[in-house]
Amino acid sequence: MTPLNVALIQQSCTGSRADNISKSSAMVRQAAASGAELVILQELHTSTYFCQVESPPLFDLAEPIPGPSTVAFGTLAQELGIVLVTSLFERRAAGLYHNTAVVLERDGTIAGMYRKMHIPDDPGFYEKFYFTPGDTGFNPIKTSVGTLGVLVCWDQWYPEAARMMALAGADLLIYPTAIGWDPEDTADEQRRQYDAWRTVQRGHAVANGLPLLAVNRVGFEPSQQQPETGIKFWGGSFAAGPQGEILAVASQENEEILLVEIDRERSERVRRIWPFLRDRRIDEYGDLLKRFRD
Amino acid sequence: MTPLNVALIQQSCTGSRADNISKSSAMVRQAAASGAELVILQELHTSTYFCQVESPPLFDLAEPIPGPSTVAFGTLAQELGIVLVTSLFERRAAGLYHNTAVVLERDGTIAGMYRKMHIPDDPGFYEKFYFTPGDTGFNPIKTSVGTLGVLVCWDQWYPEAARMMALAGADLLIYPTAIGWDPEDTADEQRRQYDAWRTVQRGHAVANGLPLLAVNRVGFEPSQQQPETGIKFWGGSFAAGPQGEILAVASQENEEILLVEIDRERSERVRRIWPFLRDRRIDEYGDLLKRFRD
Repeated sequence: MTPLNVALIQQSCTGSRADNISKSSAMVRQAAASGAELVILQELHTSTYFCQVESPPLFDLAEPIPGPSTVAFGTLAQELGIVLVTSLFERRAAGLYHNTAVVLERDGTIAGMYRKMHIPDDPGFYEKFYFTPGDTGFNPIKTSVGTLGVLVCWDQWYPEAARMMALAGADLLIYPTAIGWDPEDTADEQRRQYDAWRTVQRGHAVANGLPLLAVNRVGFEPSQQQPETGIKFWGGSFAAGPQGEILAVASQENEEILLVEIDRERSERVRRIWPFLRDRRIDEYGDLLKRFRD
Repeated sequence: MTPLNVALIQQSCTGSRADNISKSSAMVRQAAASGAELVILQELHTSTYFCQVESPPLFDLAEPIPGPSTVAFGTLAQELGIVLVTSLFERRAAGLYHNTAVVLERDGTIAGMYRKMHIPDDPGFYEKFYFTPGDTGFNPIKTSVGTLGVLVCWDQWYPEAARMMALAGADLLIYPTAIGWDPEDTADEQRRQYDAWRTVQRGHAVANGLPLLAVNRVGFEPSQQQPETGIKFWGGSFAAGPQGEILAVASQENEEILLVEIDRERSERVRRIWPFLRDRRIDEYGDLLKRFRD
């Protein structure tokens, strides 16, 4: 089995949807020209990270799926003959919206979609206002380049999500994301946050013996309400192998097309020396379905 | 709330049980003299790692609980006024043995025990021959220094185990362990293994917002069957904070008493900025109780 050539598209965004899509498309083209067969875009790549504030008019940014973006990116995937992972603000009905990843096949069709299951809500990340928690469950998406365990951002902190994907036969774990620092935090706290983010995901790779791809936004975006504050998205998109080893990592400051070659036979080898799936105590995990064991 | 002073006792072992216990005891005394209130011993600290071979006479190494070791270490805990985590080869009945951690209270009594739930079996780590998988479930042990989420070695690769402890109110995750390299592996593979081991555990700290203490054996132990081979236990015992940050780390080559101060208020602060427990999708985790989702 030959290696899989993957590209992670780490970009900054502006208020212009057309400019964002145009930039994404140009980077995807360049990635495909470099040989990428699977290209992954970051979370909510058609807009700035609008969840910094709670504002009803911002629901205008949403679109149906299928819709304009899946048509545009589907056409691009077909033209380039690649599998493309996109991340969109989905309008499902009036008053019902999701944070949804859509995987487009080489022929331009929708291979599958995943509605973000874990929704954060923190100062500056008011996602519970915008997104209903997904109802797709944790199901990987079958494509011509493998079975993709696509999850989104906040999911990356949950070992349960990665495990569910692994148990359903995912070949890769994939996280489009938009995470960054509050510039008012200390340098130490910023370093700990970035390292925790990378570490917990590398841990999922290890625990499941799977390669993992995390694609993050980069650049500073001011808050619409208090432009002197905002989020400095920390970039640092990365690829890890099934022992959690870092295969490639992008800049924390700049846009980047991160190319990486994934050895598709390595999970088989790693799981033979570390057969964690063999020994799970499913007879004793029942309380994982509880909110708290009190 | 004042910080908790913890000591991790990283040691090498010989074929003499008396020598091993004597060395452990001396190191525990020294740790207590340095102010440690909670002292943790490594996995199976009263013997060499006998699971390198499958040999019925080696069941002679086991002992009942309560038994000679819990009396000896209970007496020590009482004398020093510390909480002490030990790891013993338990004989429960003829033909029924466990790999069991026992926590001894300041007054010398047994605060609780944990029978290793996930049992490995790999070349050189033939634990399924010796140990019946535990039937204690994943229940933390209440002590005068906090509620201790004591797990053992192979458990450290399972996010489920750490999560179960966190959901039951553990204040700390604790892993006595005995892991090392096959000296025949390449330096690259050895580095990946060590890093994966540390990363997956730091990931549990992050995912659960808990401090984590891993206490590992150190030194080379030849195989009884093929003395030219063996395991080089990689030491590197460490303490991580609730963002997975490394607080202290021991040598990979030498015995060491690793002292570390745990901030007992930090989990509360970290879980306020990263409230992962709030958003778990317990309605969709049902398949975690399956062997595989096929």
